[in-house]
Amino acid sequence: MRSAFHDELDSISASLLQMASLVKVAMSDATTALLNADLALAEKVIAADSEIDTIQHDLDARTINLMARQQPVASDLRTLVTSLRMSADLERMGDLAHHVAKQARMRFPNCAVPAELTATITSMGTVANALIDKLSSVMEHKDAVRALEIETDDDEMDKLHRQLIATLLDDNWKHGVESAIDMTLLGRYYERCADHAVSIARRVYFLVTGEYAAPVL
Amino acid sequence: MRSAFHDELDSISASLLQMASLVKVAMSDATTALLNADLALAEKVIAADSEIDTIQHDLDARTINLMARQQPVASDLRTLVTSLRMSADLERMGDLAHHVAKQARMRFPNCAVPAELTATITSMGTVANALIDKLSSVMEHKDAVRALEIETDDDEMDKLHRQLIATLLDDNWKHGVESAIDMTLLGRYYERCADHAVSIARRVYFLVTGEYAAPVL
Repeated sequence: MRSAFHDELDSISASLLQMASLVKVAMSDATTALLNADLALAEKVIAADSEIDTIQHDLDARTINLMARQQPVASDLRTLVTSLRMSADLERMGDLAHHVAKQARMRFPNCAVPAELTATITSMGTVANALIDKLSSVMEHKDAVRALEIETDDDEMDKLHRQLIATLLDDNWKHGVESAIDMTLLGRYYERCADHAVSIARRVYFLVTGEYAAPVL
Repeated sequence: MRSAFHDELDSISASLLQMASLVKVAMSDATTALLNADLALAEKVIAADSEIDTIQHDLDARTINLMARQQPVASDLRTLVTSLRMSADLERMGDLAHHVAKQARMRFPNCAVPAELTATITSMGTVANALIDKLSSVMEHKDAVRALEIETDDDEMDKLHRQLIATLLDDNWKHGVESAIDMTLLGRYYERCADHAVSIARRVYFLVTGEYAAPVL
């Protein structure tokens, strides 16, 4: 028979997966809102961020409560501490989706992304979606092998980020400083979102193997 | 007689203060390196970041070890969980100082900050220093009143950040897109550093009062 403690651990893992799922929807919707200047969708992402925050708050309270009541040691304790850290990373990823959506809203009815950067931002959104999808699977199946792959997937995001900056610096850039500021911030939001995914993947890797893949970001 | 447990808690608090002190030096030196195009000082900040990371790593290991051995409940457990979160915030503040220093190094022998923004960046550095100073005192003395003040101090950083963006958007801005990108990122680093200080201050407030001043950032 499974213990009540392990049922509670499972429920914590389920809440983390729920957060990851909401973050994925938020980032995906934020990218769509940004590229299509879709105000209603941007507003939806902005409003939905508090849901992610609420789940994190509740999840952290349950995690700390479980620590206090069950006084876990060794791997169970490590799992609970890691849950707190993963929920913080996921909450921050939600914030970054929220920032992207706010940028879309700020430039409405214009599109914040100039035509030359549509492809780059589309790709950044696609890479973010794929990263978060893989991350959910890594978290669900405690998959150390795919956790390592997320490092490589993040390299793709870094490449896109460099490409974005190169476009801004090109002599042909004709959208001025305001748009360059927007795009610099947007690039940073996508890059940081991917960094947090890598950080969570490294935590899963450590939980599973007891070894560090690389320093947690 | 004080328990060995409380001695260990004190030693964890001391390490958090040590991290805050290193972060303060890093941010202060990074600002000086940036404003004076001082390559040696920038390199010093960049190299010193690993020291902050090492302290965090060691501190977190000791905190988790103490949780496992002493199985604390109630306020002691809350203190240990909060220590893990504060160390993560401080580590990130160190990263942001490191980012500022890298920006200084990247533009050497030129100064990354154009003359029109010297005063703004100087002020952002001053506000960051003052915030971290106050934060150290809040952490050391578990001072809920001053913890709340840090929220207001952060408003000053937000004001400077808006001022920085306004300068970039002014018709008189003549330093082009590359410099605007640099300054956008630098502005974000200072702003995020202050946000993390606020987040730590809110955690102290919660530990002391059992109530939330505002959502932790």
